[in-house]
Amino acid sequence: MVYVKRRETFSAAHRLYNPSYSDEMNLQIFGKCSNPNWHGHNYVLEVTVAGEPDPATGFVIDLKILKNIINENVLQKVDHKNLNTETDFMKGIIPSAENIAKAIFNELKGRLPSGKLYSIKLFETEKNIVEYRGE
Amino acid sequence: MVYVKRRETFSAAHRLYNPSYSDEMNLQIFGKCSNPNWHGHNYVLEVTVAGEPDPATGFVIDLKILKNIINENVLQKVDHKNLNTETDFMKGIIPSAENIAKAIFNELKGRLPSGKLYSIKLFETEKNIVEYRGE
Amino acid sequence: MVYVKRRETFSAAHRLYNPSYSDEMNLQIFGKCSNPNWHGHNYVLEVTVAGEPDPATGFVIDLKILKNIINENVLQKVDHKNLNTETDFMKGIIPSAENIAKAIFNELKGRLPSGKLYSIKLFETEKNIVEYRGE
Amino acid sequence: MVYVKRRETFSAAHRLYNPSYSDEMNLQIFGKCSNPNWHGHNYVLEVTVAGEPDPATGFVIDLKILKNIINENVLQKVDHKNLNTETDFMKGIIPSAENIAKAIFNELKGRLPSGKLYSIKLFETEKNIVEYRGE
Amino acid sequence: MVYVKRRETFSAAHRLYNPSYSDEMNLQIFGKCSNPNWHGHNYVLEVTVAGEPDPATGFVIDLKILKNIINENVLQKVDHKNLNTETDFMKGIIPSAENIAKAIFNELKGRLPSGKLYSIKLFETEKNIVEYRGE
Amino acid sequence: MVYVKRRETFSAAHRLYNPSYSDEMNLQIFGKCSNPNWHGHNYVLEVTVAGEPDPATGFVIDLKILKNIINENVLQKVDHKNLNTETDFMKGIIPSAENIAKAIFNELKGRLPSGKLYSIKLFETEKNIVEYRGE
Repeated sequence: MVYVKRRETFSAAHRLYNPSYSDEMNLQIFGKCSNPNWHGHNYVLEVTVAGEPDPATGFVIDLKILKNIINENVLQKVDHKNLNTETDFMKGIIPSAENIAKAIFNELKGRLPSGKLYSIKLFETEKNIVEYRGE
Repeated sequence: MVYVKRRETFSAAHRLYNPSYSDEMNLQIFGKCSNPNWHGHNYVLEVTVAGEPDPATGFVIDLKILKNIINENVLQKVDHKNLNTETDFMKGIIPSAENIAKAIFNELKGRLPSGKLYSIKLFETEKNIVEYRGE
Repeated sequence: MVYVKRRETFSAAHRLYNPSYSDEMNLQIFGKCSNPNWHGHNYVLEVTVAGEPDPATGFVIDLKILKNIINENVLQKVDHKNLNTETDFMKGIIPSAENIAKAIFNELKGRLPSGKLYSIKLFETEKNIVEYRGE
Repeated sequence: MVYVKRRETFSAAHRLYNPSYSDEMNLQIFGKCSNPNWHGHNYVLEVTVAGEPDPATGFVIDLKILKNIINENVLQKVDHKNLNTETDFMKGIIPSAENIAKAIFNELKGRLPSGKLYSIKLFETEKNIVEYRGE
Repeated sequence: MVYVKRRETFSAAHRLYNPSYSDEMNLQIFGKCSNPNWHGHNYVLEVTVAGEPDPATGFVIDLKILKNIINENVLQKVDHKNLNTETDFMKGIIPSAENIAKAIFNELKGRLPSGKLYSIKLFETEKNIVEYRGE
Repeated sequence: MVYVKRRETFSAAHRLYNPSYSDEMNLQIFGKCSNPNWHGHNYVLEVTVAGEPDPATGFVIDLKILKNIINENVLQKVDHKNLNTETDFMKGIIPSAENIAKAIFNELKGRLPSGKLYSIKLFETEKNIVEYRGE
């Protein structure tokens, strides 16, 4: 089995905010990340697919195809968007890095022509990184 | 003369938007960067100071002091903020990377205890970078 | 389960040296890394915590809290220090990257308010990297 | 158990090409990667060895020795070479990143004086990465 | 004046070879870089344009337009190509990094709708970098 | 004219310390950087040479030769060394990044077989960088 990774980037706005809490409570829990006027990030997304390379091509999955699948199902919905208000698969979900990674995993799972989705790694900044493996 | 550089990062929301244009015109010129629901970036800021090292310390400028000056005059006003609506030194200015770099240069110029502000380099993404040297 | 990673850096001096060996033997085994006049590195530390995101916050662990725990228990004891002579949790331990990673793991284990410490990754240089998962 | 990683780089030419297919078929499947006039990459190779640190040295494996083993058995055969025509361990194998990683794993397995070869990670570009763990 | 930089990447094959020299002489001068079976690199290209930001947009040059100009005039001719035999603007030129940078500068000069081409920086590897400013 | 850059790395110990000051004064001025038990860094050194490419080779300077010159005259004297006590060209000089860059410039100037030494850039950490151009 070989793990194949594709790295993409997107830029989005978000805020961390639990609507069942007061503004004070949100500020206390999320600090500056709850700024009601938004902030944003250059997210780095790393999608890992696991599988056996096809003997005819040497590919677990054709990366041109994987790139297109990521673009259509994820990047089109998050790049230069507001993750709280514009991204359908984040509706009703607090856009922490953990929750974005899980939602992207669920968005891509089942769409791959070969191999198995193994993990979604998301860099919110150089210092804050999450990974979800569907476990 | 030695050039001393300090690298900092901040995360902010913005949109590219000229208020004297219609929404259609803004969309045509700025594309997805004019999204009225905002987007954002992890900006990387590189401040360069030029000067002679002090023989007593070997420093053009004490980087602990430079870090504090950048923090107070820039980072406090841009990190986890909306550059269009919350940053005083961007009031009335389209927040293109070019204009942000120029505004940060003017914000820091005249505040350094030693050396001379030489340039502001701003990475909006890994691929889009600007530099302003006060020329 | 989601893996959350926090990246920090520190700069320290060390030498590789086994006190039960002669100087010649240390030089033969450790080469220039055993220089008795010390050398040093900019270490990059990546702490990974595994757990379920809290539905109320979307967090496995609040990264502001994790940052403070790393700072108090690790960075204060290693940054701008001599790992052989000044770091309490390295007393009597050869400061190879492997041993530093294990010691940091043990230092942080049991101090997390939520999630479980999953791994310590330590970059000694761009080319030499170790990871310890408590196994 | 500790995982020790050594990062190396090499520059090579290759093309993706299945000799049992026509040129049109190769072009259709592999696109510009099947250019008969070749193209090339700066590959980044990350070799991971797992094991217990030796109490006498703190090392899972002496990285100077690992570096030499990688150099003799891999880098000498791929750096500034044509992977399709010049690298003995790639003979008859389509040089996709997946297949190169598997071949390097098999080339290094059994040559380590201590520890166990855990994985070969290969960056073909910044965006296309594979990993093979001998599974 | 503001300097605006756009970073792109391409992967190509080449060899260093002076046709007026014997093979032995080429090998002696260029070493493994003259391998007749080619090798290749992931080049990083950084194009810098200098100019005054347009007050109506905040742009020295619209980076979407610059990206397209670089793509049409450079990337289409070098990405996944053989720089010695396939790239028209490298015909008869030894494809050292220095000469590639100069040729790309000349290829882009005069094609910019605003601003002035200031420099071409080319990373052949992480360690070998050249810059040409048309001087 | 083309600028050619070669990037190298070295790991060294140092402390910032002015022997004409008391220990208290050194601590006040240099903070944790004056720790008498030393600390260290992975320095990144970028040497830039400016010149006309030789028509016969396409090179401003053969990078294999430049690498050897840097190795003999700089890396051998600083890598895995104590910059305060072991490096001849730093004798009597406070090893601030500024002063190290100037000393390396003077060490390399006049040793190049072609081209002219243009600048020494030194990364002490990811965030603290200096450049000296002999001005």
